[in-house]
Amino acid sequence: MFIKNFWHCAGWDDELSQGRNALLARRMANEPVVLYRKPDGDIVDMEDRCPHRQAALHLGRKEGDSLRCLYHGLKFGPDGRCTEVPGQSSIPEGACVRTYPVVEKDNWMWVWMGDPAKADPSLICFAVGPSDPHWNLKTSKVSVNANYRLEIANLTDLSHLSWIHGNTLGGSDIWIRMKPQRTMLPRGINMKYWFYRAPAPAFARHLFPADAVFDMSVDVNVTLPCNFVLRFQVYTPGTVTDGPTDGQLLLDSYTCQAVTPRDEHWVDYYYSWGTSKATDSPGMSQMLVEAVDAAFLEDKVVLEAQHRNVTERPHAKQIGILLDAGPEQMLSLLDKFLAEEAREEAVAS
Amino acid sequence: MFIKNFWHCAGWDDELSQGRNALLARRMANEPVVLYRKPDGDIVDMEDRCPHRQAALHLGRKEGDSLRCLYHGLKFGPDGRCTEVPGQSSIPEGACVRTYPVVEKDNWMWVWMGDPAKADPSLICFAVGPSDPHWNLKTSKVSVNANYRLEIANLTDLSHLSWIHGNTLGGSDIWIRMKPQRTMLPRGINMKYWFYRAPAPAFARHLFPADAVFDMSVDVNVTLPCNFVLRFQVYTPGTVTDGPTDGQLLLDSYTCQAVTPRDEHWVDYYYSWGTSKATDSPGMSQMLVEAVDAAFLEDKVVLEAQHRNVTERPHAKQIGILLDAGPEQMLSLLDKFLAEEAREEAVAS
Amino acid sequence: MFIKNFWHCAGWDDELSQGRNALLARRMANEPVVLYRKPDGDIVDMEDRCPHRQAALHLGRKEGDSLRCLYHGLKFGPDGRCTEVPGQSSIPEGACVRTYPVVEKDNWMWVWMGDPAKADPSLICFAVGPSDPHWNLKTSKVSVNANYRLEIANLTDLSHLSWIHGNTLGGSDIWIRMKPQRTMLPRGINMKYWFYRAPAPAFARHLFPADAVFDMSVDVNVTLPCNFVLRFQVYTPGTVTDGPTDGQLLLDSYTCQAVTPRDEHWVDYYYSWGTSKATDSPGMSQMLVEAVDAAFLEDKVVLEAQHRNVTERPHAKQIGILLDAGPEQMLSLLDKFLAEEAREEAVAS
Repeated sequence: MFIKNFWHCAGWDDELSQGRNALLARRMANEPVVLYRKPDGDIVDMEDRCPHRQAALHLGRKEGDSLRCLYHGLKFGPDGRCTEVPGQSSIPEGACVRTYPVVEKDNWMWVWMGDPAKADPSLICFAVGPSDPHWNLKTSKVSVNANYRLEIANLTDLSHLSWIHGNTLGGSDIWIRMKPQRTMLPRGINMKYWFYRAPAPAFARHLFPADAVFDMSVDVNVTLPCNFVLRFQVYTPGTVTDGPTDGQLLLDSYTCQAVTPRDEHWVDYYYSWGTSKATDSPGMSQMLVEAVDAAFLEDKVVLEAQHRNVTERPHAKQIGILLDAGPEQMLSLLDKFLAEEAREEAVAS
Repeated sequence: MFIKNFWHCAGWDDELSQGRNALLARRMANEPVVLYRKPDGDIVDMEDRCPHRQAALHLGRKEGDSLRCLYHGLKFGPDGRCTEVPGQSSIPEGACVRTYPVVEKDNWMWVWMGDPAKADPSLICFAVGPSDPHWNLKTSKVSVNANYRLEIANLTDLSHLSWIHGNTLGGSDIWIRMKPQRTMLPRGINMKYWFYRAPAPAFARHLFPADAVFDMSVDVNVTLPCNFVLRFQVYTPGTVTDGPTDGQLLLDSYTCQAVTPRDEHWVDYYYSWGTSKATDSPGMSQMLVEAVDAAFLEDKVVLEAQHRNVTERPHAKQIGILLDAGPEQMLSLLDKFLAEEAREEAVAS
Repeated sequence: MFIKNFWHCAGWDDELSQGRNALLARRMANEPVVLYRKPDGDIVDMEDRCPHRQAALHLGRKEGDSLRCLYHGLKFGPDGRCTEVPGQSSIPEGACVRTYPVVEKDNWMWVWMGDPAKADPSLICFAVGPSDPHWNLKTSKVSVNANYRLEIANLTDLSHLSWIHGNTLGGSDIWIRMKPQRTMLPRGINMKYWFYRAPAPAFARHLFPADAVFDMSVDVNVTLPCNFVLRFQVYTPGTVTDGPTDGQLLLDSYTCQAVTPRDEHWVDYYYSWGTSKATDSPGMSQMLVEAVDAAFLEDKVVLEAQHRNVTERPHAKQIGILLDAGPEQMLSLLDKFLAEEAREEAVAS
């Protein structure tokens, strides 16, 4: 089950060139789509299925603004309407493919999988892109053989950094001891953490003396379907132990992450990490994104095994713990929107 | 769903030697079978399943005319009847495997998957084999992860040569512009095309000056379950623009193709192409079959993606176009025979 | 369908070290489990599924006697009870994982998959282990893509040695001609064979003159779920032709084999073969176990093809033969226990 009236990330904008064969096949929210750029650079996103005999349109070819199916040659304009049927002069009624609204923002391609009338670009989550002039973000991606609900739960309880990521993003018990301040958003949740006199994350510890400690601030928005934008700031140790530190800012960084449900069993994950140019140093952003690369392989092993267990016993009894608060709020919000969309669909049909 | 009272191609005759271990396992019309040659060279085709405990007979061994299952040693004559059960002197009632009529013709092995009483060899489609003394045909094969209905539709609308095969068998729009003359056959369809002053197919264009044109004739029989025998003749440009050209014959060739449904998701495809000896030149037939090799890999990609789409949404609404006429006639004929066999089976049981 | 109130073999004891990461994931009788050794060397076997959110416990870490799930850090004692939940001081009710009784015997790890109250170690089958001081057994293992019922049938009719294993364990028709003396056991069957003036098995024939013959004795216990312990003795030819030979003992050996159903489609097979130290010679036991390695690859091909046939047509009519007597007795015994356990479960719920 997927929420459709949301912007879903189709990947980094440089994954889609104006090349002759640049027809990008994706599956998003369980629908096969094909994306391509028109000569003016704008992106078209269509169902990857010819309405004639279901040939895959991503095996077709671009002709100006249009996409031609290369099985029997039907040609579709960027609005999905068939404009040419070889062997005849008229166009059969209903000869069109569904298109999806697309917006490029922060170097991500965003696709609206639901009712086009509701596709409001202001609903796209806030993020910082790799081409932002004030930041130096490096990008990467990974695919995980797990349902996106497991990713949502993963991203809304960061205590797992102390466990799964003990050798990478974690390395101390600060993520278990410190409860975040959580605030619900219309389509997500905000979580704020303050850490005082804490060691650097494991992946960065070699840069400092063994006893070095820092104050750190984490401010993260998790939004549906599954976006995660986290600002991570490091300071010299200050004098306060509650709220914003009065230490000196050493590093200001953003990691921006978009998880797209491919189907019930896979997600595609597009992410970045990097510093503000004001606090940057050579190789720093590259180290940060490589730390996420390593950490997400750790998550991948855990989530894929969890997914196999959940798939085998979807209704297994589960015990709840206090740390579930974030995942529960976020999954409840997801369920609310799922129910709402199901209701709307029932009314419409 | 498969039609059974038809000859199905089990492959090229040289795929089945008299070797000690030459037990050829195939799945045809969703039934596992094993083929072997007796010492006299005749072919036996049996269900690949021992009636004792379902061991696979293709893991057995040949003993003269017979096949012995190597799990518990039951021996079966070429008529499928059990002739020996180790450890006892009597043969249990019903100890036999189903056998299928086999005919070798045109270097193909043909198997009748239905009622043996109806296995009339004259129903085998006309073809030219690679050992025909008047022709020089080269052979090949491929397997495709698609339902055979998609292959039938592919082979009865050659307009796709202009699209999928633009760099191989096609290379101009003649296949779209020219509608064939179609004639229904008792178990198939005949299609005739005449092309005038047309360029050579893409794969052969390097042999001629850039502006070379030819008259060409294509005469093809497509027969159920899915055989395709096409005579392709090339002439110097003539003076007529309707019916047989009065140009001079340059090349006379046959491509003979048999597609066997393995199950609902795969077909095995055995094919050839080559010239008459009268119009042959060294390397010509080899070039022809290599052109089909290349073209069928193009088809494979398209048909496999189409099959995935159709499997995902078997009842998706489809729009019809004029070029569907051939596929529709042939698939209707298939459906007629499927219904007829289902009716006969219902009566019988 | 699996019988649970039986000892199932989890493998050789040296597959499970005290190493930091030695968390052995297995699937047994269709249940995922994780085994580990406590510091005192004793083995714990738990369901491989955290009761919190179904994370796989084999991706956790050992902490003394306990196992900590590395997703959210819940810690479980060797009795399966949760002893720590990070982020809170109380333990939620019901926070425990199922544990299974484990016994090490004859260098095998035995797990009781059913009611722990019934886990009687005296029900573990008799065997000889590789560390037995009087024997020199070498060990190996293999996995087979077949239902365990097919393995049971395979092991209770040794006539197949003359067919499948003609080049390895067999090599003559003695296994077909000689019917064993069968005796039912409470949880299995005993089969005794006497062979007189028989050739050596194929794998050993190079050690002797071409016309060498021997008297041989085979005494095998097959017990549920699927254990096979066979004593194989070779003698100089004696003078008797019925019952124990009066020849001179040349070789005394045991092959001990435990087949564990993983799920409906796979078994894991742990086995050994070797001589008594009194009749040993250098390299002899290694040759014996290598002969089983070769033979089990022969079985694997046959059983996997049979499994595919049976899976495709589970209710195919089968004909019976006299040699089925052993398999039928053993499978009937299995069915009796399956029915009994189903009845008990119905009463309990």
